[in-house]
Amino acid sequence: MSHNSFGHLFRVTTWGESHGPAIGAVVDGMPPNIPFTEAEIQTYLDKRRPGQSRYTTQRQEADRVRVLSGAMLGSAEGEFVSTGTPISLMIENIDQRSKDYSDIAQRYRPGHADITYDMKYGIRDYRGGGRSSARETACRVAAGALARKVVPGVVVRGALVQIGDIEIDRARWDWEEADRNPFFCPDAETAGRWAEFLDAVRKRGSSVGAVIEVVAEGVPSGLGAPLYGKLDQDIAGALMSINAVKGVEIGNGFAAATLSGEDNADEIRRGPDGKPHFLSNNAGGILGGISTGQPVVARFAVKPTSSILTPRKSIDAEGNEVEVMTKGRHDPCVGIRAVPIGEAMVACVLADHYLRHRGQTGQG
Amino acid sequence: MSHNSFGHLFRVTTWGESHGPAIGAVVDGMPPNIPFTEAEIQTYLDKRRPGQSRYTTQRQEADRVRVLSGAMLGSAEGEFVSTGTPISLMIENIDQRSKDYSDIAQRYRPGHADITYDMKYGIRDYRGGGRSSARETACRVAAGALARKVVPGVVVRGALVQIGDIEIDRARWDWEEADRNPFFCPDAETAGRWAEFLDAVRKRGSSVGAVIEVVAEGVPSGLGAPLYGKLDQDIAGALMSINAVKGVEIGNGFAAATLSGEDNADEIRRGPDGKPHFLSNNAGGILGGISTGQPVVARFAVKPTSSILTPRKSIDAEGNEVEVMTKGRHDPCVGIRAVPIGEAMVACVLADHYLRHRGQTGQG
Amino acid sequence: MSHNSFGHLFRVTTWGESHGPAIGAVVDGMPPNIPFTEAEIQTYLDKRRPGQSRYTTQRQEADRVRVLSGAMLGSAEGEFVSTGTPISLMIENIDQRSKDYSDIAQRYRPGHADITYDMKYGIRDYRGGGRSSARETACRVAAGALARKVVPGVVVRGALVQIGDIEIDRARWDWEEADRNPFFCPDAETAGRWAEFLDAVRKRGSSVGAVIEVVAEGVPSGLGAPLYGKLDQDIAGALMSINAVKGVEIGNGFAAATLSGEDNADEIRRGPDGKPHFLSNNAGGILGGISTGQPVVARFAVKPTSSILTPRKSIDAEGNEVEVMTKGRHDPCVGIRAVPIGEAMVACVLADHYLRHRGQTGQG
Amino acid sequence: MSHNSFGHLFRVTTWGESHGPAIGAVVDGMPPNIPFTEAEIQTYLDKRRPGQSRYTTQRQEADRVRVLSGAMLGSAEGEFVSTGTPISLMIENIDQRSKDYSDIAQRYRPGHADITYDMKYGIRDYRGGGRSSARETACRVAAGALARKVVPGVVVRGALVQIGDIEIDRARWDWEEADRNPFFCPDAETAGRWAEFLDAVRKRGSSVGAVIEVVAEGVPSGLGAPLYGKLDQDIAGALMSINAVKGVEIGNGFAAATLSGEDNADEIRRGPDGKPHFLSNNAGGILGGISTGQPVVARFAVKPTSSILTPRKSIDAEGNEVEVMTKGRHDPCVGIRAVPIGEAMVACVLADHYLRHRGQTGQG
Repeated sequence: MSHNSFGHLFRVTTWGESHGPAIGAVVDGMPPNIPFTEAEIQTYLDKRRPGQSRYTTQRQEADRVRVLSGAMLGSAEGEFVSTGTPISLMIENIDQRSKDYSDIAQRYRPGHADITYDMKYGIRDYRGGGRSSARETACRVAAGALARKVVPGVVVRGALVQIGDIEIDRARWDWEEADRNPFFCPDAETAGRWAEFLDAVRKRGSSVGAVIEVVAEGVPSGLGAPLYGKLDQDIAGALMSINAVKGVEIGNGFAAATLSGEDNADEIRRGPDGKPHFLSNNAGGILGGISTGQPVVARFAVKPTSSILTPRKSIDAEGNEVEVMTKGRHDPCVGIRAVPIGEAMVACVLADHYLRHRGQTGQG
Repeated sequence: MSHNSFGHLFRVTTWGESHGPAIGAVVDGMPPNIPFTEAEIQTYLDKRRPGQSRYTTQRQEADRVRVLSGAMLGSAEGEFVSTGTPISLMIENIDQRSKDYSDIAQRYRPGHADITYDMKYGIRDYRGGGRSSARETACRVAAGALARKVVPGVVVRGALVQIGDIEIDRARWDWEEADRNPFFCPDAETAGRWAEFLDAVRKRGSSVGAVIEVVAEGVPSGLGAPLYGKLDQDIAGALMSINAVKGVEIGNGFAAATLSGEDNADEIRRGPDGKPHFLSNNAGGILGGISTGQPVVARFAVKPTSSILTPRKSIDAEGNEVEVMTKGRHDPCVGIRAVPIGEAMVACVLADHYLRHRGQTGQG
Repeated sequence: MSHNSFGHLFRVTTWGESHGPAIGAVVDGMPPNIPFTEAEIQTYLDKRRPGQSRYTTQRQEADRVRVLSGAMLGSAEGEFVSTGTPISLMIENIDQRSKDYSDIAQRYRPGHADITYDMKYGIRDYRGGGRSSARETACRVAAGALARKVVPGVVVRGALVQIGDIEIDRARWDWEEADRNPFFCPDAETAGRWAEFLDAVRKRGSSVGAVIEVVAEGVPSGLGAPLYGKLDQDIAGALMSINAVKGVEIGNGFAAATLSGEDNADEIRRGPDGKPHFLSNNAGGILGGISTGQPVVARFAVKPTSSILTPRKSIDAEGNEVEVMTKGRHDPCVGIRAVPIGEAMVACVLADHYLRHRGQTGQG
Repeated sequence: MSHNSFGHLFRVTTWGESHGPAIGAVVDGMPPNIPFTEAEIQTYLDKRRPGQSRYTTQRQEADRVRVLSGAMLGSAEGEFVSTGTPISLMIENIDQRSKDYSDIAQRYRPGHADITYDMKYGIRDYRGGGRSSARETACRVAAGALARKVVPGVVVRGALVQIGDIEIDRARWDWEEADRNPFFCPDAETAGRWAEFLDAVRKRGSSVGAVIEVVAEGVPSGLGAPLYGKLDQDIAGALMSINAVKGVEIGNGFAAATLSGEDNADEIRRGPDGKPHFLSNNAGGILGGISTGQPVVARFAVKPTSSILTPRKSIDAEGNEVEVMTKGRHDPCVGIRAVPIGEAMVACVLADHYLRHRGQTGQG
């Protein structure tokens, strides 16, 4: 079952609400004897952390992660070593502004989970979105930092490739550039256009959607399993589980629908190392649900946040018709902060499948 | 774990290869006292069955399903009643042409799972694609026929909305038309254009991709669960697990990336029945991973099959470079037969989440 | 979830009722490239098969297993080789005596699952006990035959050690003797006493309970996981899942309650091979839920079957008070046939934990 | 998968080591709108808490539980109300005596998990037993306190029924007495004999085993599922997962092996309420893996702790032969504190099966 857990042999369970005392993740299945530091995890959390540019929410959270179990202190300063037992990660919530939630407690913001949580549970933690808040994604990023260490040699990176209808120019793709601008944009020129565009969006209290691409290099071949343990199936589910995501693609994705079989299938030659060498990667590194050894390429679309300044029609918990407007801090483009989250989810899926593959076949 | 099983409370396990003696599904978790007939299941199998028009593979399979367990004979002729124990469904393989597989056994078809199965397992059933064959999807369709009976009042229908780059005109959408043409196309005019287009594709031994849309009406609100048991997450995984699928969308999907928050969020009013009435359905019936009570709308993209007549570069199992050409029967557009399969997968996810929701909350 | 499935990486799903057309098991997670034959599986099925002596039910079932998927024909005659995909095993029901079930359909046999199935599902397949029949255990035995091949070098054997209050003399334990008498009794002298005792039980239409011991030798150290994936936890659950089992012990079991810490803890010395050498095995090969490398020893108690000739008080489906007497063939001691079933369950648990251990730690 | 998680719809994941900063549990699947208080949970923790009599370890832990998520403050003082999202419970470790672990770090205590953790993981948190410490069971008790609220009307109670070879007299069973003595003994006279016996055991630095009985009253009929989701199977696994447990029984347990079918089967009459009325409860409330509506009765045997003052033969991590003696605080009979733990595990199993049953059948 999987209400709040993700994965099987590498299994992440998250807990916590936006405005409770803390949020956290339990990472179960981390192989033993893997060194890591809180500082490393922090690096990824800092990528996701709000309040770092004017393009993301101004909430200020230190997002300090604490390792509460599953590791012994290692030989180096600040180093932990995994023991094979569950690693409990906790992040205290600090900037929970004490404010009056009486309006939002009873009114459903259009496009939010407010109404569906009430439909399902008949009760909901309305403070800051509660469990449906993007705050939970900090736990994913922390777990993902550990997941990255499971598959030897794997590198998982993400980039923003589209905001609104402005796409990057793939010919200018530069991973290093993605670390230099506040958009994780691999194309400096497009980053500039986005800055301008988003300033306008932000000023009019609006929001806009985005598309993120995640690329995993160094993925061993053989990960995944027929037929409901497919690698692409699990990546699709993982990315769709991120707040506000409405679409997922692998490799050519929807564009594959427009291609012919000749153009879409990746031809194979013998590589200089004697191994299969694919002449293209339309498949995004996955055939029949199993990794080919090529980079795994996934994309996902994030909708515009519905926290906007324009009043919108809605109802309250009693069914009265109301107008709802979201005051206060918000992200004009939640897709930006989704980049490290998408990376983390792909890293978790790969870790899980690596352990599963090693279990069933003894490889790896 | 989920190598070959799907779902939790409504759990489907499939088995079988394309050219073995039979394929089958075990449906575990079917609620008791639900009447059904083999004929009903057959209706859906017949939709998926190959050899029905010149646009699908000419393999001839009766695809006769047999119910081997989990049901008692009911009062009406041919009627079964579920007993709550696992329902075993079996379909014998009949048209396994006895032919010489010696070439395909050693050569990897580009774009196929041939190579990845060998990478993973070091062995593979090469006859007709073995476990990676679309033949397995008959099991999904059979299980889906039972799943449709789990959620009271739910209706799950699918349609082909795009072949190559020819999309339907949504203004002409007519569900009844979808049953009249060999493409499950809800737009008669577009069906005509597709016929012409596919004839050309078929004649030149090529293939083309497609996009399918599945709509589930009558879905109760409250299905799904934060945060890794989201309804859209499970639908995304389910659809991505279908052979040749490379992309999945919910509601507006990738188009949401280009919209503003004002345009994308679905406003709410009080309906005549006192219940929430959404003024639009950009969300595809799911908010925060939980169903709103609106129709659930999902789309998925199917790549062009790589079984084509044009010779393509590849290698054999020893690493020698070869040219591969797929002889014999094949589908010019596998997306067509994916329509009933997509419906079945969505039905299975809804059944599973309905039972889970009822379990956790007592509703339903 | 686990209504009718067992295990995780090595996962067995069974289906079928006593008097339906067939019963079967889907074994998912069998590692690839493992050779096996139907004849090997049959050997274990024949051990469990009814009708072999006057001490077990006279139902005649050939119990011929068929392999329907998950394997290719190997090089030797009748040899299969696993491909890593699910192995479907089917056994057709042949001797389903067509008789009048009208009495048993409406009356609850005391001590049977008749009443609880009706309480749970409101419907039940009353023919021969339906899903609750011991017939299902043939599937376990077949799956267990495959499980035995997963852990290199492991040997799982069982023996009957008690019938009624007649226990074996452990000083006379001889595994070869266990294959020579109809009781799987490792002590010839006790077997003789049992024969006499059971004849009397059978003649008066009564039944009696038994205790079975299963010993697994060659189990690698390290199998199991804290804290809810303990090897002994899973063995306990596995054995308790067998029909009529009411108690399970590991190592000293309940006797450990009467011992002192000095007497119960197994001391350790360095063995001639440099490895830990335990001076005793009170723990039954498991410490902290993880295998030590010693033989794993488990025992389980089987209640006397409630199918007896003496009339007993009960009610019918309408709540009327009735007298129930089981006519026809039955086992005076169902514990006898439980021996190969217990072996199979332990083998399945070991296979599952071996794959899990290899997955998480890379060992094995 | 279930390394450190337990249950399906009501799912408990625990984390933490004996001497880390904290231990905790994440309870996922708690139905919404159930009120509870930290004080209630504390009541059960206090039952398990060490240092309360001279018969248990002198470690002093306040065992203060904190609710970190999954609940809103209710209307009454200190009251929480569950929201349906995961409830994170944390207990800080306070009395982690800073001492020199250098000897124990390298030496394996006979009968402990020290050696198997090292065999499995190649690393272990040796401080206070790390993850294998009974300290983890505080998390089970806390989770069990929530589980007790899931099944309406259920009451789960436990009692110690045997220490060493001194059994209680069942004719004197008095649940209220079990709360009055430090042994959870329902028989005052036997409690007196135990006090004397245990004083002697404690004085000679030895230890002794025990048997605990757990009785759940008010269990609805229909909980459990064929054939690997049996209620007794899950109870057996749950109880065997508790540290030091070596045997589990349901109803008559091992004694059933010595009975005849006439004596063991529970006869049924029509009760005054028209419902089935069983004339005895040899089955322990479970038939065919499904609850009958009678009290569920389970027993489990706890071995004597191996932490004793007598030097015992062992080896160290390098394989050298050593003598090991456990210094410091320990429990002469760990079985005493196992009573609330056993109750908690049974409560968790019942909660899980109640939700599963409600999910599959709509009952409850």
